[in-house]
Amino acid sequence: MDNRPDGRVRVVIENVKPCIDGGLFPIKRVVGEAVTVWADCFADGHDQLSARVLYRRCGSCEWNIGPMELVDNDRWRGGFSVDEIGGYEYMVEAWIDHFLTWRYGLKKKFEAMREQEIDYTVGLELLEKARKRVLAADCQELERLRAIIAFSSDRTVRFEAAVSIELLHIMSSAPDIELAARSEPVLKVTVDRKKAGFSSWYEFFPRSCTGNPARHGSLRDAAEYLPQVSAMGFDVVYLPPVHPIGEVNRKGKNNSTKASDTDPGSPWAIGSRLGGHKAIDPRLGNFEDFEHFVAAAQKNGLEAAVDIAFQCAPDHPYVKEHPEWFTVRPDGTIQFAENPPKKYEDIVPFNFETEKWEPLWDELKDVMFFWIDKGVRIFRVDNPHTKPFSFWQWLIDEIKREYPETIFLSEAFTRPKVMNRLAKLGFSQSYTYFTWRNSKAEITRYMAELTKGELKEYFRPNFWPNTPDILPEILQFGGENAFIMRLVLAATLSANYGIYGPAYEQAVSEGIEGKEEYKDSEKYEVYSWDHSKGQRLRSIITALNTARRENPALQNNRFLEFYPVDNEYMLFYGKRTPDLSNIILVVVNLDPFHAQKGRLKIPLYEFGIERSQTYFFEDLLSGSRYVWHTAENHIVLDPAVSPACVFRLGRRLSGEARFEYY
Amino acid sequence: MDNRPDGRVRVVIENVKPCIDGGLFPIKRVVGEAVTVWADCFADGHDQLSARVLYRRCGSCEWNIGPMELVDNDRWRGGFSVDEIGGYEYMVEAWIDHFLTWRYGLKKKFEAMREQEIDYTVGLELLEKARKRVLAADCQELERLRAIIAFSSDRTVRFEAAVSIELLHIMSSAPDIELAARSEPVLKVTVDRKKAGFSSWYEFFPRSCTGNPARHGSLRDAAEYLPQVSAMGFDVVYLPPVHPIGEVNRKGKNNSTKASDTDPGSPWAIGSRLGGHKAIDPRLGNFEDFEHFVAAAQKNGLEAAVDIAFQCAPDHPYVKEHPEWFTVRPDGTIQFAENPPKKYEDIVPFNFETEKWEPLWDELKDVMFFWIDKGVRIFRVDNPHTKPFSFWQWLIDEIKREYPETIFLSEAFTRPKVMNRLAKLGFSQSYTYFTWRNSKAEITRYMAELTKGELKEYFRPNFWPNTPDILPEILQFGGENAFIMRLVLAATLSANYGIYGPAYEQAVSEGIEGKEEYKDSEKYEVYSWDHSKGQRLRSIITALNTARRENPALQNNRFLEFYPVDNEYMLFYGKRTPDLSNIILVVVNLDPFHAQKGRLKIPLYEFGIERSQTYFFEDLLSGSRYVWHTAENHIVLDPAVSPACVFRLGRRLSGEARFEYY
Repeated sequence: MDNRPDGRVRVVIENVKPCIDGGLFPIKRVVGEAVTVWADCFADGHDQLSARVLYRRCGSCEWNIGPMELVDNDRWRGGFSVDEIGGYEYMVEAWIDHFLTWRYGLKKKFEAMREQEIDYTVGLELLEKARKRVLAADCQELERLRAIIAFSSDRTVRFEAAVSIELLHIMSSAPDIELAARSEPVLKVTVDRKKAGFSSWYEFFPRSCTGNPARHGSLRDAAEYLPQVSAMGFDVVYLPPVHPIGEVNRKGKNNSTKASDTDPGSPWAIGSRLGGHKAIDPRLGNFEDFEHFVAAAQKNGLEAAVDIAFQCAPDHPYVKEHPEWFTVRPDGTIQFAENPPKKYEDIVPFNFETEKWEPLWDELKDVMFFWIDKGVRIFRVDNPHTKPFSFWQWLIDEIKREYPETIFLSEAFTRPKVMNRLAKLGFSQSYTYFTWRNSKAEITRYMAELTKGELKEYFRPNFWPNTPDILPEILQFGGENAFIMRLVLAATLSANYGIYGPAYEQAVSEGIEGKEEYKDSEKYEVYSWDHSKGQRLRSIITALNTARRENPALQNNRFLEFYPVDNEYMLFYGKRTPDLSNIILVVVNLDPFHAQKGRLKIPLYEFGIERSQTYFFEDLLSGSRYVWHTAENHIVLDPAVSPACVFRLGRRLSGEARFEYY
Repeated sequence: MDNRPDGRVRVVIENVKPCIDGGLFPIKRVVGEAVTVWADCFADGHDQLSARVLYRRCGSCEWNIGPMELVDNDRWRGGFSVDEIGGYEYMVEAWIDHFLTWRYGLKKKFEAMREQEIDYTVGLELLEKARKRVLAADCQELERLRAIIAFSSDRTVRFEAAVSIELLHIMSSAPDIELAARSEPVLKVTVDRKKAGFSSWYEFFPRSCTGNPARHGSLRDAAEYLPQVSAMGFDVVYLPPVHPIGEVNRKGKNNSTKASDTDPGSPWAIGSRLGGHKAIDPRLGNFEDFEHFVAAAQKNGLEAAVDIAFQCAPDHPYVKEHPEWFTVRPDGTIQFAENPPKKYEDIVPFNFETEKWEPLWDELKDVMFFWIDKGVRIFRVDNPHTKPFSFWQWLIDEIKREYPETIFLSEAFTRPKVMNRLAKLGFSQSYTYFTWRNSKAEITRYMAELTKGELKEYFRPNFWPNTPDILPEILQFGGENAFIMRLVLAATLSANYGIYGPAYEQAVSEGIEGKEEYKDSEKYEVYSWDHSKGQRLRSIITALNTARRENPALQNNRFLEFYPVDNEYMLFYGKRTPDLSNIILVVVNLDPFHAQKGRLKIPLYEFGIERSQTYFFEDLLSGSRYVWHTAENHIVLDPAVSPACVFRLGRRLSGEARFEYY
């Protein structure tokens, strides 16, 4: 007659979390992580409810069951763990539990001495119905309890059997879910390998690896540098685009519109008569050299990441072969990139509104698979915010379906909602505003946004204190101490971080007047680096990466907390594992010029340390050890010595002369 | 090949508000109200966007257009008004506006003296394409501007034509929306008549209307009382259930399980050998008397509301005719209501898990239509939280489809999420926790919940300081002043409010020891009321209802704001119309025993009054007038005189000897 739902389903499930945009996008996890699921579950009336989480790998037919329990105010919590790379899905199931309702009522009546024979008869009927559902192993016990409830003449014995834990377990393991409600829609999880959540990136220009500015470095030269990168403890090595660089309108030194014959050009101006996105700049080598580099990285405990920049130099083969993929102006010329009144005549963007968008998408996908075939599984995507969201969503889905281990880093420094959307639709990691967050207030507010709100479910920050494009103000005037300070912040606030080196280790600080850009940027030149420089920073980088590798607390951002320190130029925060087996406390002096002193309030109660207990710290940067007895302690950080401490918390075992780490 | 979306649609629309549970439920409005729509709209790259709201009456094929504008940070705002009772739907549409993008770029280039012929050619192409879309009335003007842009040799003239407001209007009125994005899902509005949002309820027992406790009053007697209800300014008169009252297990005085022969029983124990939900208790009269009552109400400016209580006395005809609608216990008896260990043996609940739920639903719907046929359009629904949510959703939809003017008041004092769900699924108004919110902190927090968060979109509070079931503590010990104080709060904080009278006017305060219930409750007895009592309260009720009727500011809760007063026992708040044409400020002394003094800070700037300006108040309760010159003023409220002031704000016209209201 009318389209009414099954009216006997009385339970309502609302407000299931985590849930991104009503289930339009998956949440993200890495292998081994937990998904804690929340939901409001309630029904009309006063019956007792039961609820559980149903979850499975995408494509599986069988649901697994995760427990849920009532927290408060009709809010239930449960969860499950994800153990394999790929997609998972989950939902909440809840139902009126007539057995629990009966059990609860019987208890109340028994206490009031008002239980009657009919009350037991009602319960026995529930047991009778459950008989078909219970596990074979439970049948005998069920029958035993049933007999007591049915026949015992001892009021207490009978009651005890009815409300026994044993009966509760049997009945709960075989609930009557005929009228259960299920949450809608089914929600999804993207499970990535661990590196998506915890990685240390090092970016450098292969062409600058010869120690001789007159000689353009090759991928073979770059491979020679890898042991040094590895020694610093990085695990991802990322190269700017390796393709032939455009010759038409090539940029010269300092982004000049006039290039000399020897200027190598910007690697992001991709494509020339020598080839496009599927070619390698001959000056860097050939595919054999590329594969050698990838293998050398692997041998050094590094994974090679390449740059994906979907844009073309004017002489990119695509421009001639597929003018329909670009904007052709009324005069027949191809529209170059512009941000009026500025023009970028060395770059032509794709026109994603072309009627031929499908072949364009397919070709770009082909580019990705081309490099996947060459062994690449990490892509740093240049300016993804200038290509359509739907394109990326499709592309990442297409790749992850076949290669779910692939990691995509979104290089978008743009409006927050655009950056968030890119993360939602599938980018594994994202560049952030960290680069411009300097004060205590800015940093704490931004970290709260990243780690306390909905972002934590899908946006994995990757903190870069510098990039070839950005030399922030603090690094221009703060000297080496500022480089250390920003490095410590990046490496301890965020489980994913990276630097552009060797400019970072060597604290290269000269910027273009009034801009946050490098003077004589390596983007437009071949450099030669003197690797004997930068020892102080290199040793701190090494210590930090060692600390990150050895301390699981630093390998995600879920348990970041800020703690009080009474100095606006000092930041005090901690990370820990959920089981408190590893606790890291970080104190940073945000002032690169002056020693700063502050009184730290250490939340001992959070760490299970009693007020009277002695505890100790080891500073993982300096190796110094501290024994403290009180929850408040002064600390002085002199940037000339070290602008930061990264403490690992230990506890003195009572009566023993040794320390034990948490 | 694969199911990719149209990749040329580059705009993304997110986070459309208002939106209840992802669009599962409609928002609510009354006729004439506005719907302000918010959305995040953005695209890849740096192109300019345009956006608008599309809305229509449900069932209409044509979308109407409401404007939207960018507020900040990719957040857009727009809206529309709803003018007819029934359903509306809305969505957001946004697109890359190539004309705006071109216009913006041209401006930048012109300012930098860098515009070229090709820039105009590109623009002329956009105009050429627009020619097919623009209104016929605009063609001539478009052609005129096009010619200037194409042929003018004056750089400035040409530019001015290109960026002219005229051209902008023409192009904006005929946008190219081929690649526009639309938000999903389509969102819904339930538009009710005004009374759903603004109503003053009076509840009384018809059987107590004879002035003689020995004589059971009839609906004809009740009709005689209506002029007095009307004189107090109410507009809804609500009667407890008028059906035959169960005789089996009937409750006696004070909820006693033993009734004497003369005890009338509780009207909520519905049904006996004399009939059920479609019958009238013969002691109250017959259907002719009922229709007389409804007509008499109407004549007195009142609308009659009846009680819908879907539960049965044990001797309700349904129990015999449809035992399948109830829970039959293993011994063949029908399960009565219980909340273990308490039993309610005068009531049997329906079993909504019955396999025969469909005929049960149909019968209950039939009950509703039965009373609709008798002219009733307002239903106060008893204990809706003990019947399934899906039942109410279906029932209200079924009724509103035919009678969209119907109003449903949800009488649920239960867990917040349950109450909210009932509002979401369709109840027009809801009982609230106001009855138990007494302190300044409690009231301000609760009002923020009701008027600032998502609840404001779908939950219309109806504030009751008392009901036949509830005599709150404050009224038991606070004397008549407490009744006045709670009345003022209810009538000014909430646009919908009600009282149970004459118990309220006469400040009946005797409760059952340790409970918030009336001693000798009228639910179980026939009362006789001496209407010469309660004059003080009656005159304040009359003044309040007059104030409510005459001041649009009091007719909704959207613009409620609390203002500072430096006394914890005083509450200071205001309501206004959006255009400031009507401003009401209320000061309440929450202490019913002592005078309280406080310094009010009046936010003159919010009301457009300058610091030096004289303004005046009229207290709509006492008629007193005040002329003030400063934003801060002391006020003393002595509950013996009046525990509250309801000020209407006016302004002195400069140089004139008269006042003008805002």
